[in-house]
Amino acid sequence: MIKLLVAGTVAYDSIETPFGKVENVLGGSALHFTNAASFFTDVGIVATVGRDFQLDDIAFLKERNVDMAGLEVDRKGKTFRWHGKYNFDLNQAITLKTELNVIENFKPRVPEDFREAEFLFLANIDPELQAHVISQVKAPTAIVLDTMNFWIENKFDRLMDVIEKVHMVIINEAELREISKEYNLVRGARKLIARGPTCVVVKRGEYGVFMMNEEEVFLAPAFPLESVFDPTGAGDTFAGGFMGYLANVGDAGFETIKQAIVMGTVMASFNVEDFSINRIKKLEYEEIRTRYSAFKGCMQFGECTL
Amino acid sequence: MIKLLVAGTVAYDSIETPFGKVENVLGGSALHFTNAASFFTDVGIVATVGRDFQLDDIAFLKERNVDMAGLEVDRKGKTFRWHGKYNFDLNQAITLKTELNVIENFKPRVPEDFREAEFLFLANIDPELQAHVISQVKAPTAIVLDTMNFWIENKFDRLMDVIEKVHMVIINEAELREISKEYNLVRGARKLIARGPTCVVVKRGEYGVFMMNEEEVFLAPAFPLESVFDPTGAGDTFAGGFMGYLANVGDAGFETIKQAIVMGTVMASFNVEDFSINRIKKLEYEEIRTRYSAFKGCMQFGECTL
Repeated sequence: MIKLLVAGTVAYDSIETPFGKVENVLGGSALHFTNAASFFTDVGIVATVGRDFQLDDIAFLKERNVDMAGLEVDRKGKTFRWHGKYNFDLNQAITLKTELNVIENFKPRVPEDFREAEFLFLANIDPELQAHVISQVKAPTAIVLDTMNFWIENKFDRLMDVIEKVHMVIINEAELREISKEYNLVRGARKLIARGPTCVVVKRGEYGVFMMNEEEVFLAPAFPLESVFDPTGAGDTFAGGFMGYLANVGDAGFETIKQAIVMGTVMASFNVEDFSINRIKKLEYEEIRTRYSAFKGCMQFGECTL
Repeated sequence: MIKLLVAGTVAYDSIETPFGKVENVLGGSALHFTNAASFFTDVGIVATVGRDFQLDDIAFLKERNVDMAGLEVDRKGKTFRWHGKYNFDLNQAITLKTELNVIENFKPRVPEDFREAEFLFLANIDPELQAHVISQVKAPTAIVLDTMNFWIENKFDRLMDVIEKVHMVIINEAELREISKEYNLVRGARKLIARGPTCVVVKRGEYGVFMMNEEEVFLAPAFPLESVFDPTGAGDTFAGGFMGYLANVGDAGFETIKQAIVMGTVMASFNVEDFSINRIKKLEYEEIRTRYSAFKGCMQFGECTL
């Protein structure tokens, strides 16, 4: 029985960074998310791939108790493909080409077994599909939504309808500004909270995470890395660490959310150390615990002595 | 007897932000620095102003034990003036006009009484003047240097000569990239440390501070404010809170430096709430202590439970 359900994309990515270039590597929001989350809890994945997809390449996820019953193979088309590049400012992805392929006809179907999952992550897909996923689940403890500028610009009303139904929004800084029409993050987050969610988690790339609920603020910088190789999937890996941790602890209270944000940050910091899902794929629990502690150490300081 | 010496500028600023406009208000690196630092320790200021400067406007600093013996009034010229503006991205100052005026002939003279100061801050001025200040002091516990892109681009070798003589460098993110020719902050800071300083403090505006010494890293986000009014002087106010705190405690060890960074962040967060030096001028100790605690609260989280 899965605890955490994710609906999103599984893709083949082609990526260029100042440090190298890869073609047709594993990617997609649901895959990066699951790769991270499966260290912490049993995950069920709802996504679609095409006839060209090599299922063997993700068989390792089954050993981490990932349930693939919701991964639909659409033989009529090819797998979703994204081709992007980054310059030295690794915060900014430049899309060179997007081939939607099977995503165009994707209608997410949540398997019966998945419908009682306590935690649900709606990765960045069409808000209408996100709403359709919500309609199929029972009563999760926490529904968390991610989105992107494309939906904010093209399906604003539908997106806001879904946001009213979720407990938390994970969004990047520029997107929060765009969706809230507020430059200031505190004001922007407050506007979203007024629409329903109890909590907004703002991703700021190499600058870390800003989280706000109705009463409190939590700030986490990013883990300082000497070599950032490929940021693709960092946001979804963050979400995977975050929700995997929540599901592992089994609640979504403020203290757990703070630890989960740190865990998401830790997992994202591993993700960017290699292309695709490679670094997280071979990660050990001890590395995760060690980096969590090191990160905590980088943020500790004494009381004011005045 | 002063504990903390600052050499820098005192200026009249004209500033435009999306929230308002002011003309000929008090500014300059040494003034913003002193305004903040004087809450924590006895400060001596070395700077020059012109015949048009209204000394009465800064008389309030004497009540905070600021020694003005090093403030030279140059009757041959007018006070340094800076005219700048900010758009909504308040991280980015746009210089509209700079009138150097008396700064052009400034030759900082450190009064005899100031030469045994334990802490020295070299604000952003010509590196040759910074070197001249160092040559006049005895043996400070900590010499801290700030600089800007203009000196990196026009007096690189002189600047590096001074950096070899200081204990710490406070620098903003873009400047660190420029001076080190490294995009990555960890690598950039390490390059500077290899030249002499034991510690590099990187200012990242609304994203906080990254600090590195030979062995350790400390990360502090910025204090989340709902209304940022005018960022002018935030960097120097940060430095004032930082060095004022070091001088107050009387050492520059890692634990003190971390608290000092937080104190600098707290003081900078007040500075941006109003134009010029206005907010810090009327600040109360209790407000400082309260914000320090609130900030600490925003960064606390539990151990990993895995």
